[in-house]
Amino acid sequence: MTKPQANAVHAPRPWEAPLTSIDKGAPALAAPVPLSEIAAQKWNVLAEDLPLPAAVIRQDALLHNSQWMRNFLDDSRAFIAPHGKTTMAPALFDLQIADGAWGITVATPHQFQVAAAFGYKRIFMANQVIGRRAMADIVETLNAHPDIEFFCLVDDLSNAEALAQAVRSGNAKRPLNVLVELGYAGGRTGCRTVERALALARKVHAMRDALDLAGIEGFEGLIKNDGSPEALAQVGQLLDGMVTLAETADNEGLFSADEVLLSAGGSAYYDVVARKLGAAKLARAKRVLIRSGCYITHDSVLYARAQEALRVREPALANAGGGLQAALEIWAYVQSRPEPGKAIIGFGKRDISYDDLPLALKWFRPGMAAPSTVPTGHTVLRLNDQHCHLEIPENSPLVVGDMIGFGISHPCLTFDKWRVMHLVDENYQVTASFRTYF
Amino acid sequence: MTKPQANAVHAPRPWEAPLTSIDKGAPALAAPVPLSEIAAQKWNVLAEDLPLPAAVIRQDALLHNSQWMRNFLDDSRAFIAPHGKTTMAPALFDLQIADGAWGITVATPHQFQVAAAFGYKRIFMANQVIGRRAMADIVETLNAHPDIEFFCLVDDLSNAEALAQAVRSGNAKRPLNVLVELGYAGGRTGCRTVERALALARKVHAMRDALDLAGIEGFEGLIKNDGSPEALAQVGQLLDGMVTLAETADNEGLFSADEVLLSAGGSAYYDVVARKLGAAKLARAKRVLIRSGCYITHDSVLYARAQEALRVREPALANAGGGLQAALEIWAYVQSRPEPGKAIIGFGKRDISYDDLPLALKWFRPGMAAPSTVPTGHTVLRLNDQHCHLEIPENSPLVVGDMIGFGISHPCLTFDKWRVMHLVDENYQVTASFRTYF
Repeated sequence: MTKPQANAVHAPRPWEAPLTSIDKGAPALAAPVPLSEIAAQKWNVLAEDLPLPAAVIRQDALLHNSQWMRNFLDDSRAFIAPHGKTTMAPALFDLQIADGAWGITVATPHQFQVAAAFGYKRIFMANQVIGRRAMADIVETLNAHPDIEFFCLVDDLSNAEALAQAVRSGNAKRPLNVLVELGYAGGRTGCRTVERALALARKVHAMRDALDLAGIEGFEGLIKNDGSPEALAQVGQLLDGMVTLAETADNEGLFSADEVLLSAGGSAYYDVVARKLGAAKLARAKRVLIRSGCYITHDSVLYARAQEALRVREPALANAGGGLQAALEIWAYVQSRPEPGKAIIGFGKRDISYDDLPLALKWFRPGMAAPSTVPTGHTVLRLNDQHCHLEIPENSPLVVGDMIGFGISHPCLTFDKWRVMHLVDENYQVTASFRTYF
Repeated sequence: MTKPQANAVHAPRPWEAPLTSIDKGAPALAAPVPLSEIAAQKWNVLAEDLPLPAAVIRQDALLHNSQWMRNFLDDSRAFIAPHGKTTMAPALFDLQIADGAWGITVATPHQFQVAAAFGYKRIFMANQVIGRRAMADIVETLNAHPDIEFFCLVDDLSNAEALAQAVRSGNAKRPLNVLVELGYAGGRTGCRTVERALALARKVHAMRDALDLAGIEGFEGLIKNDGSPEALAQVGQLLDGMVTLAETADNEGLFSADEVLLSAGGSAYYDVVARKLGAAKLARAKRVLIRSGCYITHDSVLYARAQEALRVREPALANAGGGLQAALEIWAYVQSRPEPGKAIIGFGKRDISYDDLPLALKWFRPGMAAPSTVPTGHTVLRLNDQHCHLEIPENSPLVVGDMIGFGISHPCLTFDKWRVMHLVDENYQVTASFRTYF
């Protein structure tokens, strides 16, 4: 693999708030520290330069993952607009753009405003835009920033009509790009049949004074990520429907632009998405767009499982460079050793995702040379808001004040617990701190 | 009940960041709006002046709850240091202080820094302070702010020794106030027996150059909040142990100050806490301190259940003024109507607590005169990060673009999803917006 571009990480905007004592994960500071001056502080997590809990991202793993995805995209000829909702961290968006991302995906009007404010020029909102104020705000923002390309979804005629009306009444300088969303029975949003989606695409085409039909979209991310034959069949069926829909709409001349976007979005089946959508036969040019958000930090539980399934399905791809690495860790202190078989750790639901519980990975006692692997038998039983109940063997070495590094499940619901996170080198020295904008 | 003091709500500090387009819950703004100028914007949620989802607090219910707690404290002769970790919102802390709160409780060194930065003068950290940096930061902050009274817990001798050492090496101008924590088998932190707690209290007394033994603490908040005889027996046993411990330590002259703090902390059994701890017989003066955080907004599920149990136990108290009211609502749009029996709503785990699922309470279609009650049969099935799956009857009136107000379960894990929340009047006009500091 090509060498990762370390310098691509982290370009704080001059107007971002400096770090202060009231940022979770920051030490008490005599004066605010601009984000651009964090490395110069030479903070080291293991030297106890930071209060805990703290969220750290291992920079080498992050860059490795970014590079891994670039190689996958090069091989598959697909493009990525990584889902920004995962991290809401422009410092990481910058890395993703530097690594060739086509754009940034967002989920909500709020996230669109963040992406626009941070200067991203191609923003894909993987939802319908709902509501008077959100529609007006988006039209106005696009009027003020003619260099921003914006895309959103429709699955409902009344919504498409309201959107067209907002474009007209907002004196928009150009039509809004929309993709018709195809769903599946029991799924989330999206038209439930190709016929209904096609009917909507025709209606959108009829509103081409205000809306440009830019492509076809689907979301396979809620289908079980275990790679089972049933799951793969369901993913395949959705993607086949998208291809049929796109080919028919192309035949009927419903698309407005020279290039048709075909996009599907989860973090578990992008290989299948790239292959299936890549096989669509259109008269116009097409661009296959995946939207994985979680690959960039990966995780130790939820997407680690999905990666195992990928290893079975596509061993050469999954194992390239050793595969994706879990980059995000939450470090916390042993807070109490109240009973022989129990330790209480100083972090909780305020700090980490908990649909699946975190894993105790690394153990460090201040003064030791380096962290070691947590011995077996240390298992997270449950989390309270600010505490973790850890089951431990009676001969566990843990004492109050020891540090534990936890692997997470589900990056999205861990990132949103932190307004400031730290990038660290292999010695847990902080090389940068960045803000999230949830 | 005395009339609530509406003017006590919301005193933004001049240095708090103004509202901008990148704040979730804010509309796109041509220029930043200082928090002090929000009311003048005359935003109305039902007029679609804000993008959704948005978190709103009904001001009348908030003030009612604050007053309800004041009346309870007047009657019980207990004091409150409301748990700031619930809201981390100085705007609400201000209300609580104006309503007579003795101090603010925090859970972590970070939360202590927030409380100190916002000028609160009595801060109770309901945890041990762990780690070199947190100890040094707290000692330094207290040196710089001699007007701040700080209290924290100990349940471990090595931690007490490390804390004493930090006090000495930090050239602290005064000893640190600590309370010995009593726990219970199977619980969270805290010494598991009165004997062990007493032994620790004696050791703390021996370190009185650096540590002042200020009281006794326990936490009953993890005991089942259903008010069952078993739960009440467990709560009673912990509190009885605290009383024995306090009386013995008092007899032995272990307390440093003229006044002994007796504090326990959840949001379900404060009536029992006030009564049991109020009966302790000490030679010194005592102050009974409860630390409920959730009463201020209450909720529609978790603490609504606890309130039902209180209604059985103490009907006069629970029903005073009609009892606590659910003040916090999340409003969101119907995002998609993909199947007859399903609506997708535009909010998710990013926006609301989900240990128990939220309740669809209010339905509003833009243009209607006022919200009405959601018809029966509309049930939240599950939440994704940014979406809610709502089961609906086939004759449901919901269409894309309708607005739904959801009641929440567990305020703590809803507040932390929002950096900006709105206070609204009875017509859902925004009277103030405030920031949280998680």
